[in-house]
Amino acid sequence: MKALVKASAAPGFELRNVPEPTIREDEVLIRVRRAGVCGTDVHIYDWDAWARGRVKPPIVVGHEFAGEVVEVGRLVTDVHAGDRVTAEGHIVDGRCLLCRTGNSHVCPYTRIIGVDRDGCFAEYIAMPATNVWHLDDAVSFDIGGIHDPMGNAFHTVLTAEIPGATVLVTGCGPIGIFAVGICKAAGASRIIASDVNDTRLALAKRMGAHDIVQPSEVEETVRRHTEGLGVDVVLEMSGVPSAIHQAFALVRVGGRVQMLGIPSKPVDVDFATEIVFKGLTVYGVVGRRMYDTWLMMTRFLRSGQFDPTPVITHRFPLEAADDAIHAIKSGTAGKVIFEVA
Amino acid sequence: MKALVKASAAPGFELRNVPEPTIREDEVLIRVRRAGVCGTDVHIYDWDAWARGRVKPPIVVGHEFAGEVVEVGRLVTDVHAGDRVTAEGHIVDGRCLLCRTGNSHVCPYTRIIGVDRDGCFAEYIAMPATNVWHLDDAVSFDIGGIHDPMGNAFHTVLTAEIPGATVLVTGCGPIGIFAVGICKAAGASRIIASDVNDTRLALAKRMGAHDIVQPSEVEETVRRHTEGLGVDVVLEMSGVPSAIHQAFALVRVGGRVQMLGIPSKPVDVDFATEIVFKGLTVYGVVGRRMYDTWLMMTRFLRSGQFDPTPVITHRFPLEAADDAIHAIKSGTAGKVIFEVA
Amino acid sequence: MKALVKASAAPGFELRNVPEPTIREDEVLIRVRRAGVCGTDVHIYDWDAWARGRVKPPIVVGHEFAGEVVEVGRLVTDVHAGDRVTAEGHIVDGRCLLCRTGNSHVCPYTRIIGVDRDGCFAEYIAMPATNVWHLDDAVSFDIGGIHDPMGNAFHTVLTAEIPGATVLVTGCGPIGIFAVGICKAAGASRIIASDVNDTRLALAKRMGAHDIVQPSEVEETVRRHTEGLGVDVVLEMSGVPSAIHQAFALVRVGGRVQMLGIPSKPVDVDFATEIVFKGLTVYGVVGRRMYDTWLMMTRFLRSGQFDPTPVITHRFPLEAADDAIHAIKSGTAGKVIFEVA
Amino acid sequence: MKALVKASAAPGFELRNVPEPTIREDEVLIRVRRAGVCGTDVHIYDWDAWARGRVKPPIVVGHEFAGEVVEVGRLVTDVHAGDRVTAEGHIVDGRCLLCRTGNSHVCPYTRIIGVDRDGCFAEYIAMPATNVWHLDDAVSFDIGGIHDPMGNAFHTVLTAEIPGATVLVTGCGPIGIFAVGICKAAGASRIIASDVNDTRLALAKRMGAHDIVQPSEVEETVRRHTEGLGVDVVLEMSGVPSAIHQAFALVRVGGRVQMLGIPSKPVDVDFATEIVFKGLTVYGVVGRRMYDTWLMMTRFLRSGQFDPTPVITHRFPLEAADDAIHAIKSGTAGKVIFEVA
Repeated sequence: MKALVKASAAPGFELRNVPEPTIREDEVLIRVRRAGVCGTDVHIYDWDAWARGRVKPPIVVGHEFAGEVVEVGRLVTDVHAGDRVTAEGHIVDGRCLLCRTGNSHVCPYTRIIGVDRDGCFAEYIAMPATNVWHLDDAVSFDIGGIHDPMGNAFHTVLTAEIPGATVLVTGCGPIGIFAVGICKAAGASRIIASDVNDTRLALAKRMGAHDIVQPSEVEETVRRHTEGLGVDVVLEMSGVPSAIHQAFALVRVGGRVQMLGIPSKPVDVDFATEIVFKGLTVYGVVGRRMYDTWLMMTRFLRSGQFDPTPVITHRFPLEAADDAIHAIKSGTAGKVIFEVA
Repeated sequence: MKALVKASAAPGFELRNVPEPTIREDEVLIRVRRAGVCGTDVHIYDWDAWARGRVKPPIVVGHEFAGEVVEVGRLVTDVHAGDRVTAEGHIVDGRCLLCRTGNSHVCPYTRIIGVDRDGCFAEYIAMPATNVWHLDDAVSFDIGGIHDPMGNAFHTVLTAEIPGATVLVTGCGPIGIFAVGICKAAGASRIIASDVNDTRLALAKRMGAHDIVQPSEVEETVRRHTEGLGVDVVLEMSGVPSAIHQAFALVRVGGRVQMLGIPSKPVDVDFATEIVFKGLTVYGVVGRRMYDTWLMMTRFLRSGQFDPTPVITHRFPLEAADDAIHAIKSGTAGKVIFEVA
Repeated sequence: MKALVKASAAPGFELRNVPEPTIREDEVLIRVRRAGVCGTDVHIYDWDAWARGRVKPPIVVGHEFAGEVVEVGRLVTDVHAGDRVTAEGHIVDGRCLLCRTGNSHVCPYTRIIGVDRDGCFAEYIAMPATNVWHLDDAVSFDIGGIHDPMGNAFHTVLTAEIPGATVLVTGCGPIGIFAVGICKAAGASRIIASDVNDTRLALAKRMGAHDIVQPSEVEETVRRHTEGLGVDVVLEMSGVPSAIHQAFALVRVGGRVQMLGIPSKPVDVDFATEIVFKGLTVYGVVGRRMYDTWLMMTRFLRSGQFDPTPVITHRFPLEAADDAIHAIKSGTAGKVIFEVA
Repeated sequence: MKALVKASAAPGFELRNVPEPTIREDEVLIRVRRAGVCGTDVHIYDWDAWARGRVKPPIVVGHEFAGEVVEVGRLVTDVHAGDRVTAEGHIVDGRCLLCRTGNSHVCPYTRIIGVDRDGCFAEYIAMPATNVWHLDDAVSFDIGGIHDPMGNAFHTVLTAEIPGATVLVTGCGPIGIFAVGICKAAGASRIIASDVNDTRLALAKRMGAHDIVQPSEVEETVRRHTEGLGVDVVLEMSGVPSAIHQAFALVRVGGRVQMLGIPSKPVDVDFATEIVFKGLTVYGVVGRRMYDTWLMMTRFLRSGQFDPTPVITHRFPLEAADDAIHAIKSGTAGKVIFEVA
């Protein structure tokens, strides 16, 4: 089959013919229809320090996808050939104390598809049946293919108390834009979104942001709409140090900062004034809660209260991987997807 | 001044001239502009068993209102003459263990205006400054005048987890209809509303219910939209025994039932099958959380995400008290208000 | 092997020789060392209405046990021959929406060992590996054998907020007595335990109750130790209608009632005064949270902060099943166990 | 009356005769019996940068105390002459949105006694009646006099989930030592306490720590007692940068870090590895929750489950202020108190 492969310890992906995966008896084989391209894929493409320390070529890349089940292992009871599905890309051990107490999203034994084992930028992928999530009839493969990053956004938003809240979203990459739309659907009373890029801000506006502003305007905007007090919740989606400091400065005392953005290096934090004396709660967001987050995605999509369609701005065939990576690097894209089949 | 008075231990209200209230140094005097009429007022009007046991005539009735501050006591610092306000009608002691630990809504020393002391169906009312809540510029006196029952609905809805939830609202009196709209604004993914009255169901539809059904159709409707499992949350707003049993039957295992409706007599509960084996959480809703609920009302109204205007179906002057009571008793009214000034 | 069998649709158990169970590839075979006898076993023994509606003879009975693993299926990775283990007796499907979102304890597809499939009053039992829980070195087979009912008690206690709380425990059967000890270990500031039986009250005292009282003395005792306000939390472990009414009457406004006891028939509830106007939260306790409750058991036992040893009052061989059942029916026993091997 | 005064913008305190305070009609006058000395007092004594920016001499210092009420204002209804009391030293406005929604501990308008207005190192102090907390008969003035720092510890501990938890306490100053004892009373299953000072570690041991270790031994100790996973909760009470990094490193994935210690300058945080990828929750602790924390203190003290007596290691008269400050600076003291009367 056709697959995008990280072939060697060097930049770039290679479109290759590789053998179709075989499945274990508790796995299913899925024909990939759509696959999302993510910043993580860019790191692997560029072969940066993180990628060099984690990824062992050769490996099929890609971890966001949707498709049709074509084969199921002998022990699989709840997934059938022909089912329209997506899947959680974090394969956890399922038996450690964290997995057994509702914290699979931080399972220490997590292996990620497209990073630690073969991924989804390919015509077929093998997945454990326990990772499969059925798509509602109302959900297209396009949207199914981006459940992974949407799930990051749902996890970020729904672990805060959103109904009636004032929210600042710092960083309007695809996950930030999703988060804006989820906040809107979940009843935030004011959503202020910031980014340096006007195209992204326009998408945030379309997803329901009340205010879209450049970073330099955030403070004044927050003060104006919160009687000077600060917002109840900040969703930090950028990883930019100045945005992190804004998050701590502009959340109200006793408020909550959800951190999903990943700074590339350490940030100087003044714990006294930025966290302790403000009585803040700071929450680190990793992955998606299994599978509360996935259930919520299905609910929000099925009802139509959240429609991420506008966030998909670019579509490519697997053959145009370089173009897809380039589109993300441009900093102006919403979500970039591969149309695999 | 003009006031509706429960003059004696007998049915009916009387429009009388009574002295204007005087205020203590920690109170404010408010010129009433709008006042909501409530089922509690009907009980007092009818002089039923509950009223006979609780109310001591003569007393000015009415507990829902909004108006303008005309005078403030010497110790009041945060309310000023001319302020547009509404008020929490439960006057609590503020010093008991419950009040001091965030549970004023169940303060054992609560005195209710229009029930235990003079109320708001009058041109002026005296209120402790601590009970006053400022109206946002965007909120009319009409809406200000119904904050008390809206607050019951907000309390009911926002103490459940609503974003993405499937919700059944049993009983579409004004508070039930408000609750439908709040669920919609707070991101419920499916709202099923039931009542015997089509006018009320039409209001529930207008406020955002996905399905409006007669009680006989509730079970089938819930099963269809929840894969047979039941809803995540039931808001029981009717107090009707059959609806209470439906609540326990149609909430999913592990779900939540919020009980605001007041049955007029004991109900036979099969704890084994209705509550324990289902792993339910049942929550009794009394009053409004002070003042989290009020802050949420301001947030939802200011943003425009919730607009209760359609729920107000009848308006009367104080002189037409009998007509107002009659409108409520008809069972088809939404919210009935007095236009006092 | 030797096993206690519900042989036919009639009262009693029969000690029989039956074939050793065979295991599937995801199961393990456990040699039973200790097994707890439970009220549910009494129902099956007596062949009452509930048992007649649920149990299909012939079946090996018993659902509480501990033992040693003697064989593991090919797919089992985290359990090994020789491991000292106990097991969750509720076998859930693991794939339904409830199981996938942290609510396995109310999985609608639950099958219970000793009720819906062969149980543990036998020399060997087959269990799915996912249901197995390892015993800490510090935990004996005696204590391992009663993890199921202890787990009910842990679930009941730890889903309330116990540190510093005043607690009333109505009903001092084994689970109630366990609950007293868990409350003590978890920092309750006052524990009042009630029962009609002095032997059981003496056990409650030994496990840490501050006050042990007859039902007739509960009200006065609660009033005295709560400044007349009522307790923060009631653990209703009796299923007796009068105790349920006491629970609602003696919990403070805004308090919490955990219901584990199962009344044999419907109870008249005055929702207005017993639940709604008091602003209560009522929680139905079913099974054990999987596997948060189990982790907590290990923690409390390993640290020594909770020692249930005194609760085990009777020990029998499988041959003395009639005596074991009789001991429970006497109403004075703590926990009754079988010493199987 | 006699009082310790920060007389001018220079190091030291001065014992002076000053006029007795007069009270407003909503205040009470308290005869001080015991007063705790705190690190904050040392900052003011030393006249460091923080003190120079905040304190306006001349001012009576001290913010922790207990005593007897000698006079009450005309509007005060629930405090009487002769009452044995302590008081919350943070005087909040009581009317802002934070105060009205249960977050007085972060009221932006807080004024602290002994910092922003006259304090308690004096024979008498005036306090708003709303700040007064009655001492239970079982609680001595000694213990009453240290409710403020004990309250910091209770706030820190009880906003985490402690029953059954494994806990690391970094820093065994008085608040850290209190926290150890509260964790013990609230059912922590393992408490590891670290400090550089052996005297303080001995106190931590006496209050219930299972393991007392030097900072260099923390990692190994945590790994050993948590199967290598890390503790559920860290209470960071030191403000030392290396301890903060230990907190993030040694809490388990998905765990919680409660931050009370105040670093004197910014700390480099690697958000990716220390917070985000670990899925942590970090909570900044400021003051005491009003008045949930105070109720819990009374509960824990009245029951005897927590006894802070051993933490008080030094007692001085007001005349020996220099000695008291010196004792704290020595780094080996537990709690230092003044015996005022």
